[in-house]
Amino acid sequence: MPAPPEFIKFVDNNSSAFIERLRAAVAIPSVSGDPSFRPRVIEMSNWLNGQLQQYGVTTKQVDLGTHVMDGQTLPLPPAILGRIGDDKSKKTVLLYGHFDVQPAAKSDGWDTDPFVLVEEKDGRLVGRGSTDDKGPILGWLNVLQWHHETKTPLPVNLLFCFEGMEENGSEGLDELVIKEKDGWFKDADCVCISDNYWLNTRTPALTYGLRGLVYFKLNVTGPGRDLHSGVFGRTVHEPMTDLISIMSKLVSPTGEILIPGVDDMVKAADMEERAIYEQLNYSIEDVESGAGGKIALSDDKATVLMGRMRLPSLSLHGIEGAFYGPGAKTVIPAKVSGKFSIRLVPPQTPDSVEPLVKSYIQSEFDKLGSKNTLEIELLHSGKPWVTDYKHWNFAAAITATEEIYKTKPDLTREGGSIPVTLTFAEALGANVLLLPMGRGDDGAHSTNEKLDKSNFIEGTKLLGTYLYEVGAIKAEGK
Amino acid sequence: MPAPPEFIKFVDNNSSAFIERLRAAVAIPSVSGDPSFRPRVIEMSNWLNGQLQQYGVTTKQVDLGTHVMDGQTLPLPPAILGRIGDDKSKKTVLLYGHFDVQPAAKSDGWDTDPFVLVEEKDGRLVGRGSTDDKGPILGWLNVLQWHHETKTPLPVNLLFCFEGMEENGSEGLDELVIKEKDGWFKDADCVCISDNYWLNTRTPALTYGLRGLVYFKLNVTGPGRDLHSGVFGRTVHEPMTDLISIMSKLVSPTGEILIPGVDDMVKAADMEERAIYEQLNYSIEDVESGAGGKIALSDDKATVLMGRMRLPSLSLHGIEGAFYGPGAKTVIPAKVSGKFSIRLVPPQTPDSVEPLVKSYIQSEFDKLGSKNTLEIELLHSGKPWVTDYKHWNFAAAITATEEIYKTKPDLTREGGSIPVTLTFAEALGANVLLLPMGRGDDGAHSTNEKLDKSNFIEGTKLLGTYLYEVGAIKAEGK
Repeated sequence: MPAPPEFIKFVDNNSSAFIERLRAAVAIPSVSGDPSFRPRVIEMSNWLNGQLQQYGVTTKQVDLGTHVMDGQTLPLPPAILGRIGDDKSKKTVLLYGHFDVQPAAKSDGWDTDPFVLVEEKDGRLVGRGSTDDKGPILGWLNVLQWHHETKTPLPVNLLFCFEGMEENGSEGLDELVIKEKDGWFKDADCVCISDNYWLNTRTPALTYGLRGLVYFKLNVTGPGRDLHSGVFGRTVHEPMTDLISIMSKLVSPTGEILIPGVDDMVKAADMEERAIYEQLNYSIEDVESGAGGKIALSDDKATVLMGRMRLPSLSLHGIEGAFYGPGAKTVIPAKVSGKFSIRLVPPQTPDSVEPLVKSYIQSEFDKLGSKNTLEIELLHSGKPWVTDYKHWNFAAAITATEEIYKTKPDLTREGGSIPVTLTFAEALGANVLLLPMGRGDDGAHSTNEKLDKSNFIEGTKLLGTYLYEVGAIKAEGK
Repeated sequence: MPAPPEFIKFVDNNSSAFIERLRAAVAIPSVSGDPSFRPRVIEMSNWLNGQLQQYGVTTKQVDLGTHVMDGQTLPLPPAILGRIGDDKSKKTVLLYGHFDVQPAAKSDGWDTDPFVLVEEKDGRLVGRGSTDDKGPILGWLNVLQWHHETKTPLPVNLLFCFEGMEENGSEGLDELVIKEKDGWFKDADCVCISDNYWLNTRTPALTYGLRGLVYFKLNVTGPGRDLHSGVFGRTVHEPMTDLISIMSKLVSPTGEILIPGVDDMVKAADMEERAIYEQLNYSIEDVESGAGGKIALSDDKATVLMGRMRLPSLSLHGIEGAFYGPGAKTVIPAKVSGKFSIRLVPPQTPDSVEPLVKSYIQSEFDKLGSKNTLEIELLHSGKPWVTDYKHWNFAAAITATEEIYKTKPDLTREGGSIPVTLTFAEALGANVLLLPMGRGDDGAHSTNEKLDKSNFIEGTKLLGTYLYEVGAIKAEGK
């Protein structure tokens, strides 16, 4: 059953107001990975809580306690639980989103202030969090607004779970989900998460798989303080030399993971599975357009797509404690921390990969014969996830997509990680649908992150229509 | 001829005022390597110019033009030329120093604000520039102050050359020295530079050799912007993977330079030369105390000292453009720039080493088969220098040291670089003496840089006494 035409019209007529609300959300720099921004993440929780309440949602802000980040004990931003509707004859859909964002600074290379939403002439709404994940959350608010203002009952009961630590390991959320599985979440028939992207810039997608993640920090220490390379060069073991040597042994220039056993866990695709990737509406040009450079690892489309969707990957993110500024500083840094992460796919799990990583790195470090000290930290982790895309939850979303976009969605596995997906699937025993709003070139986690205005508006329609299709399944007795 | 006892007494009685002046100098964050601090380097030039003028020094602030740093065209901080005394019967000593400093921030690990001088109970005067090189410059001001206030003629004529770009390649200074060799500097009989350190914490030193430097920046680019490792991991060539691979091939964990031909230029020490290093008042414990960790590359004292004084060294300083903050960011950085430098010793020169470095790195990059792009920049360079320590300029300094410190100085070669030393030596044809004020554990370029109060006060006496010893040589007809 399509959504009411009045709803569709309302969305078209209120795009300016919706964008203003997105501007207000982006203006709160809710960066969860930097202790100094923690009060702003909490401010964002309060702002969103108020938005939900004004549309009749019963909410509860949940204190998740404290955690330690960079040596500081910090309060975790409160998660928001919500509920609207209590009609036993309707299905109940649990919606998840996150209101925290990745770090961003103009000096990273943004063309504009990342926390001031800019509407470009080509329709891009540029700002940190525009697509990841404030735009999608606000899509749900837009749907709620019409039903509230017109006093139209929703076609389903809704449960909400919005958190503020997704970009930093979703700390505290697993415990909350498990605690509330027979409480706040007990009526959930299915879950919908809008926190990923189309494969390309043309075709809507539904996603039934995600890679997992293990994120490591390698600390190498030795000197008691930073040293002058003129005075100490070639007299002491330099932590940077050791760290760079270790980091160079993790991944090959063409993406193979060099840690013994990690790539081996994943069996190669057979011809049938390979065909799935060959048929996706995608090209090497799409990858290179998204990346902004002709740097694809292969000229074969299926190889590149499998690298993203069904193979693990290892990326070196950077080094904390070394010289990072402009200019020339002749320092021997005293303590350096290399950051890297591995994206996991089934059957890999953090528990199976972590010991391989640690023992390999320790043994490579031992080979260096350095007097410096190595410490290996696992900063956070999440299991990979794959689900059944023939479930009615996916069927509703496929029909809704066809109604709004007049095309079948791509059914994809995604390269990124949303660890809570698996938590919901396992704790609630419910089907989880990933229903993306943005495009493959949105640049989540990157400079100049954007959400296209058309994706924000049509995406709002899609979210609303999906709820009506779920409601219709119930009415038809499925 | 020792300095007048009244001068020695004046220095002892005015230590508090001298420290207050050092506090004022440290409070101006004259960081030459960061464009945003450039106005403060210029402010420092003006401050120092005023200090010299108040003691009767005739000065000229020289506009050195502009240069480009990080894409910005910036004015170079004006150098200060000075002259006091014009007695043809006296020797003329040219004094060099620099009033710019290395970058520093509390977040680098300083215990206190680096630009607020703190006098610790143990006598350490902690602050950026305290020992490198504001303390020594202020030592000369202290000497001038007594002669000015007591209307005592100086025992020599003095020329001054103080610059504000030493920590960033002394841009513009070579041209100035060459231009003024028959002008402002034409009467110089010798040069004295106080901008290095004792070998240990106990024994005054005179230095007759310095290592040179080539400082490189390796830029690897590919993506048009930073990418999300979930979306692009294992689909594109990652610049960090390429850069880390290259950086890992430059130096071994035990300090050998892996660039073919670089280490080979320097012949091994014979038994006689090795004996010089074995006899220095120094120990492995001194190195490790200075470094703050038990990380010496060898247990053999001469090996460690030769690594510092007569061998080239290669240090990896850091990466610009990668993730450097706390926490976990799953970014694939789009443009990363690795910074490293090589300290050079005779017969190496920047001209002989640069092509070896560039061709090796290019060939190693080519082997990676990456679609990313590599650019190799030489940020700055300076030749190594060794001089004759039997010259009367050194003899005067040896006698002065014995008078103030009651001990013979160590005669050392230094691991650091002061490229202008060679410029003065070559352009003026004059002997150059390095007469350090601070100790080996001062931590120039490091966190918690300090100058001990006793070194500041006794060092002021030493600088004054050295001038009297040079003057006496003239009187004795040498």
